[in-house]
Amino acid sequence: MYRGFEASEPTADDLKALAQSRRNTAADVIRLTTLAGSGHPGGSLSTLDALLVLYRFGHLRGDAPHAADRDRVVISHGHISPGVYATLAHHGFFDIQEAYAGFRRAGSVFGGHIESVVPGVEWNTGNLGQGLSAGCGYALAARIHGRDHRVFVGMGDGEQQKGQIAEARRFAHKYKLDNLVAFVDVNGLQIGGDTAEIMPTDLDAEWSAAGWRVLHVDGHDHTALYRAFREATRGETGGRPTVLLLETVMGKGIPFIEHQAKYHGSTLSDEQAAEAFRILEVENDLDVLRALRAERSATLPHTVVVDREIHLDTGAAAERSADVHTDCRSAYGEALEDLAARNAGDEAAWPVVGLSCDLEGSVKMNAFHARTPDRFFEVGIQEHNAAVIAGTLSKEGIVPFFSTFGMFGVVETYNQQRLNDQNHAAPKTVVTHCGLDVGEDGPTHQCIDYVALGRNLFGMEVYAPADPNETDHVIRAVATRYAPTIVAMGRSKMPTVTLGDGRPAFGRDYAFTPGQWPTVREGTDAVVFAFGTMVGRAVKASELLAPEGIALRVVNASSLQPFDRECILACARDVGVLLTYEDHNVHTGLGAMVAGVLGDEGVAARLQRLGVSRYGTSGKPDDLFAEQGLAPEHLAEAVRAMVRG
Amino acid sequence: MYRGFEASEPTADDLKALAQSRRNTAADVIRLTTLAGSGHPGGSLSTLDALLVLYRFGHLRGDAPHAADRDRVVISHGHISPGVYATLAHHGFFDIQEAYAGFRRAGSVFGGHIESVVPGVEWNTGNLGQGLSAGCGYALAARIHGRDHRVFVGMGDGEQQKGQIAEARRFAHKYKLDNLVAFVDVNGLQIGGDTAEIMPTDLDAEWSAAGWRVLHVDGHDHTALYRAFREATRGETGGRPTVLLLETVMGKGIPFIEHQAKYHGSTLSDEQAAEAFRILEVENDLDVLRALRAERSATLPHTVVVDREIHLDTGAAAERSADVHTDCRSAYGEALEDLAARNAGDEAAWPVVGLSCDLEGSVKMNAFHARTPDRFFEVGIQEHNAAVIAGTLSKEGIVPFFSTFGMFGVVETYNQQRLNDQNHAAPKTVVTHCGLDVGEDGPTHQCIDYVALGRNLFGMEVYAPADPNETDHVIRAVATRYAPTIVAMGRSKMPTVTLGDGRPAFGRDYAFTPGQWPTVREGTDAVVFAFGTMVGRAVKASELLAPEGIALRVVNASSLQPFDRECILACARDVGVLLTYEDHNVHTGLGAMVAGVLGDEGVAARLQRLGVSRYGTSGKPDDLFAEQGLAPEHLAEAVRAMVRG
Repeated sequence: MYRGFEASEPTADDLKALAQSRRNTAADVIRLTTLAGSGHPGGSLSTLDALLVLYRFGHLRGDAPHAADRDRVVISHGHISPGVYATLAHHGFFDIQEAYAGFRRAGSVFGGHIESVVPGVEWNTGNLGQGLSAGCGYALAARIHGRDHRVFVGMGDGEQQKGQIAEARRFAHKYKLDNLVAFVDVNGLQIGGDTAEIMPTDLDAEWSAAGWRVLHVDGHDHTALYRAFREATRGETGGRPTVLLLETVMGKGIPFIEHQAKYHGSTLSDEQAAEAFRILEVENDLDVLRALRAERSATLPHTVVVDREIHLDTGAAAERSADVHTDCRSAYGEALEDLAARNAGDEAAWPVVGLSCDLEGSVKMNAFHARTPDRFFEVGIQEHNAAVIAGTLSKEGIVPFFSTFGMFGVVETYNQQRLNDQNHAAPKTVVTHCGLDVGEDGPTHQCIDYVALGRNLFGMEVYAPADPNETDHVIRAVATRYAPTIVAMGRSKMPTVTLGDGRPAFGRDYAFTPGQWPTVREGTDAVVFAFGTMVGRAVKASELLAPEGIALRVVNASSLQPFDRECILACARDVGVLLTYEDHNVHTGLGAMVAGVLGDEGVAARLQRLGVSRYGTSGKPDDLFAEQGLAPEHLAEAVRAMVRG
Repeated sequence: MYRGFEASEPTADDLKALAQSRRNTAADVIRLTTLAGSGHPGGSLSTLDALLVLYRFGHLRGDAPHAADRDRVVISHGHISPGVYATLAHHGFFDIQEAYAGFRRAGSVFGGHIESVVPGVEWNTGNLGQGLSAGCGYALAARIHGRDHRVFVGMGDGEQQKGQIAEARRFAHKYKLDNLVAFVDVNGLQIGGDTAEIMPTDLDAEWSAAGWRVLHVDGHDHTALYRAFREATRGETGGRPTVLLLETVMGKGIPFIEHQAKYHGSTLSDEQAAEAFRILEVENDLDVLRALRAERSATLPHTVVVDREIHLDTGAAAERSADVHTDCRSAYGEALEDLAARNAGDEAAWPVVGLSCDLEGSVKMNAFHARTPDRFFEVGIQEHNAAVIAGTLSKEGIVPFFSTFGMFGVVETYNQQRLNDQNHAAPKTVVTHCGLDVGEDGPTHQCIDYVALGRNLFGMEVYAPADPNETDHVIRAVATRYAPTIVAMGRSKMPTVTLGDGRPAFGRDYAFTPGQWPTVREGTDAVVFAFGTMVGRAVKASELLAPEGIALRVVNASSLQPFDRECILACARDVGVLLTYEDHNVHTGLGAMVAGVLGDEGVAARLQRLGVSRYGTSGKPDDLFAEQGLAPEHLAEAVRAMVRG
């Protein structure tokens, strides 16, 4: 059973127990940081009382850290990991000895910034400013699933300077997420000194301006904290989310470090720690714990608890015939609507959710939106916030499709996608208007780096389907695949890509398989690897060359991560004349992947890389391709030179 | 002479002229977008009156677009390019025929989003939310140079949702940039519909909360606009910057498109355009202009007007002897302070400015700060804002050093750095705590992707010096090099890298040359390319191997962009056994570069790539390196296997 914040006051026993918990966990903060010789005691101690009250009364149980009805807690200022670990251990999430042994040691789960491999930690943080967005995601997930638990987001006051928080605040207000409670540790100090001097910020005015209810609370008074959490969770705000501004003292409880910015990130010496233990009336067991750390590091495994079995009827891709001329994004929109429609009546199906940033029409989400209006969320021009929300939803048994232009869903939000990946989240970031193919919107909108960005992220999958038919297959395939995913497409309408016999290359019987590159045109004189809009252009080049007796094999590299190492090696071995052809930065995309494989294997194939070699201008896609030597005629000429030369 | 906003009212002649200008420029907005068949007429027409009043009275002259005393105008909602081009041409910045011929056509300067290759455009925009930060940069530059011109930033209302604007607002307030005037085109519509529905935002409350003076203005009343600009530029705000919230109508002046979100990004048909011209009482010359476009595209050259001759005494790097054990960031701090000190008395020297995001101590800027307190700016935890400010300063005859951790200065701000690059800006982004070497802060803080990110940006230079001595050389070299630059370093102290004879490898007589890779250890059995902290480790490996009779050549690849293609090819040719060894994602860093060169040249050297192959954990750097097979012993073993194997 959970305690809850229903009573008007904590009992005298509660207060006594909290006082004792406070001493013990404060001592653990000192132990952890002094043992490691690094870490963040100051903010841990200023946030500690709020954590203790929250974990005592909130719907949180150490013996059921993954219960569906648990409250979700996101600690956005992830550097207060000592305070978080001390609190979680104190509430039975794990044995504190594990943290003593492993804190800030290679291979341990107990990192300097909290990670969700630790029981009780929902969301990895450390890059400031993202936690409130994660809280929005959890709060939205609760709404979608019809669950009545709460979401609590702890934040630092220095962190309040990050712009993304303004985005998250607006989103929570728009969607009336009154199941969301933020609490800010206003200790008035950040690394560089007084927060008011580093960057003056009127927290009350800013949160109020965004429509939140603001409560000012003594962050070290357990009764006051209890009352504030109670007030924040009573649901009498007319839908407004609540933020608690906690007046706190950095280093609280250890007088000789209180109010000193230095102890944001500096640890106590053994002598100082001894004095702290005296003050806290706890045993000085540093020697014992040092022996423990000498004996072993951490033993808790890096276990990621996420439901990866996505239940969803993905139906079958439609087949657009050879004479159809449409764009991949329309095929995406149709597939997405079909996913929504065919799973609408199934209680066990994971909710399919759509998120857009003021580009619903451009990314073709309208039909999906109309079909399931309660599953579509317009995040506004707030891509950082949207990317994190999508990530969080994916960890809560939801299939989120986040769609905008490639520039905004991948480039602008690269660090948010990176943290999603570290969180083992699995949002489907389906981005349109990629490459020079975005055309007249010009260089600021030409996303020519998504392959490179995706390849930096170890867990990310990246797909760029060749035409609308393949798009349909890819969207359905990724829907039930638990992995963070980028599906990239251009803007323009295009012909259906066909096989040599005139049939659609990615028709009904096509089986899209991640990591496998299908051949679209056979050929033994040269091989071109292409993806996305360039596949059709490569086919055109092969058709230009055929009458000249040059047989150009066209390989569809739509699966960019994972990619098809075997195919590259087979083509190198069997043909030996290779080209890459991409609507992407030539240095960092497909060409770099192919060259890497050849280098790793010491294969001396001839390779020519055709791609975008400078920022494009603003104009019609075909003109932009021509400007950069990327028209089918250019590819044909390059092949000719390699084959004949 | 400039007119200025000194009079209490515009004259009757002014108002008459403005009314006529309005008709002509509105017609140009229609002409441009209908000719191109794409573009953004709606917001162009809603912002147009503000632009016309600003350019008529502001310190702006078409015949002197680069005058030092001109007001700077940043149009953050860069999609209103038709309105901007029409206004600029009307004020003599160029012939409107050029825009007619070139708008949204490949190779032209007149892109869909404004670019600074167009006379009168200061700053490329298109990715929303960055313009106010650019305005902060221009306003700060004026302060630093002691110039009294104004900075005006036009913005859209949909754009107000972007978090970065909250950061810029705070910065302007903190530094009392009352030479900065923002004006927001509040037409109430964005692509997806009503702004109030897409994402409710209380603009007055938000700007007020950030300490700005807010004026509400009828955005189509020329007298009201004049008065508002006058009020905003009178300097009677107690240092507060001013924002004008302009009440406007999307599509203003063409009644049949007014108030319709569709015309954010849709153009008028020929018939609609004809009707618009009738309403505006201007000639319908679409046929003539179509003929012009058929005859020629743009002729205006892509000229970037930036002063690239950086005047600065860069002194000479110090030499840390072989037995010194320090970190690169200390050497950076010393070099930066020396740059400040030795140029302090020189009126002609470009100001050296430091920007930090709450990490002044960690990035070792303290001495610089103390030496020239008026040249150091603490931006708070607002890296997006800081990156853009640094970029803008660089275009104004200032040498900005922007320093924070790699994760925040490069990864978090990738899209800001990208736009800096497209702007031909040249900030020095000197980032510390890169790689696994950041240690206990864990995976969220391990910047293992800066080489890959830098290589995506065509103009970016990327350097990762091998030790404190080379850091000193690099910092002085980049100070007078006009290019956007990333200088990356780790966190840890390290031994001085030495040559085989024991002398410091990067001592007094070392000449750092971008694009050249010096050899640190000779050897003919194998070659390892390394950069940053891995160079010293590679030297250690070579010392482990020497007694075994294996001579490992160690090449310092500190210049990552530009890089040394000739060196790679020479090593492949002369030795043929190559390794790359990096504290960076193994797929996307130095190894990928070397493989790319081998692939391009069809060279079949044997290559092994050692690098970071998964996110690190939190622990001591040496432990983290060992975890990923990156200790010197691992390198030695890999070399042994290749040489003997």
